[in-house]
Amino acid sequence: MRMRKKNYQEVVLATSKYIVNEPSKLAGQWKAALGSGELHVEIGSGKGDYWRLMAQQYPQAAWVGIEKNVNVASVALKKASEVDLTNAKFIVWDANLIQEWFMPGEIDVLHLNFSDPWPKKAHVKRRLTHHHFVEKYYQLLSDQGRVIMKSDNRELFEFSLVVMGQQWFVLEEVFVDFRSSTHDEDVISEYEQRFMDLGQPIYRAVWRKR
Amino acid sequence: MRMRKKNYQEVVLATSKYIVNEPSKLAGQWKAALGSGELHVEIGSGKGDYWRLMAQQYPQAAWVGIEKNVNVASVALKKASEVDLTNAKFIVWDANLIQEWFMPGEIDVLHLNFSDPWPKKAHVKRRLTHHHFVEKYYQLLSDQGRVIMKSDNRELFEFSLVVMGQQWFVLEEVFVDFRSSTHDEDVISEYEQRFMDLGQPIYRAVWRKR
Repeated sequence: MRMRKKNYQEVVLATSKYIVNEPSKLAGQWKAALGSGELHVEIGSGKGDYWRLMAQQYPQAAWVGIEKNVNVASVALKKASEVDLTNAKFIVWDANLIQEWFMPGEIDVLHLNFSDPWPKKAHVKRRLTHHHFVEKYYQLLSDQGRVIMKSDNRELFEFSLVVMGQQWFVLEEVFVDFRSSTHDEDVISEYEQRFMDLGQPIYRAVWRKR
Repeated sequence: MRMRKKNYQEVVLATSKYIVNEPSKLAGQWKAALGSGELHVEIGSGKGDYWRLMAQQYPQAAWVGIEKNVNVASVALKKASEVDLTNAKFIVWDANLIQEWFMPGEIDVLHLNFSDPWPKKAHVKRRLTHHHFVEKYYQLLSDQGRVIMKSDNRELFEFSLVVMGQQWFVLEEVFVDFRSSTHDEDVISEYEQRFMDLGQPIYRAVWRKR
C-alpha cells in the first residue's frame, strides 16, 4: 500500500505539466509565463479544488497554487491533469520561502482557504496570518493588492481580523456567514462543502493594502 | 390604556434621580459628577439592563446611558429606581446631539449593544456605526478610548467591521460567537439572552483609536 502510494505520487510529481520545480526562476515573470491578467496565488491549496476551479472560471487571470504536503499536492496535480489549463501552475514547497519565488509587488491577490488553524498557543507563529507572514504578503502584493481569506475556524478568523487590521491592511469586505447568500465570484471546494453540509458558518474577509 | 402609560412615563421621567435633562451643562464634568474613574457611555440603552448591571458591577467607573425612545427609556429608569447607583446617569434624547453633551476626549469607552440594524439601503446613514457617527466617536473618545459593540445582526456587524477599520479605529478584539465561551467582564441583558436561547451567535468587537 505504501509503495503503491509512493509510486503514484512520484509519477504525478514527475510528469505534471503544472508543477514548477524551480519557482525562483520565474520570479518577476509569472504573468508573462501564464498570461497577462492578474496574478492570483493560493497558499495551502490542499487537494487543489479551489485553485483548479478558479483557474477554469477565470481564464484571463494567472493562478498559482502552493502546497507543501506532497500527499495532497499530488492529488491536486492528478485532478488538474484531467483538465487543460494554460493559466495555472503549482508549487510543492513550504510557503515560508514565498519571497524567493515572487518579486515585490508581483502578486495581485493572495488566497488563504481553510488554512490550518494551529490552535495551540505554541504554534501561533505557524498561522498563515501571523505577523511575519502578513509582512511578506504586504511586500509581495501590488499597490492595490488584496488578501482573500475563507475559513471555517472561528479562532483563526478572529485572530486574522485583528492581525491584518493592525498595520498593513484595511478590511474591505467581511462575511461571518458567507454561504447564507450566493456569490457568483467564488467556487466551493469539496472541503468547504463538508462544513456547509454540517450547517457551520463559513467566514470570509477581503483586505486591501493600506 | 394610553393614558395610564403616559402617566406612568411622566412620573418616572419627572422623578428619576438618574435622568439628566440638560446634559450639555455637564460637558467636561461628567467624571467629576459621577466619580473619578473611566467614563462609559452607552448609546441606545433600550430598557437599560446593560447600563444598570454594568454600573452595579463596575462601581469605580461612571456610566451614562442614552436612549431616545421615551417608552423604553422610562422602563430603564423604573428598573434603575429599584437600585441605588451613584455612578450612573441617563439621557433621554437622540444621540445625534452627543457632541453637545461631552467634551472632546472626555469619554473612555463607548458601548453599542444590539443597535438597530437599519437593514434598508435608504436607512444606512442611521446605523450607529455609519461614518458620520464614527467620526463623532473619534473626537469624543480619549487617546486610548475604545468602542465596544455587541450585536446579533450579521449585516450590521459586518458593516461595522469595515467602516470602523477604515480610518479612525483599529480592531483590538473580535468574536464571531461571543457566548461560546464565558466572559466575566460583561453582563448579559434580557434582550441578549433571548438570542442566546435561540442558539444564535452574538458578535462582539472592540476597537481602539488609531
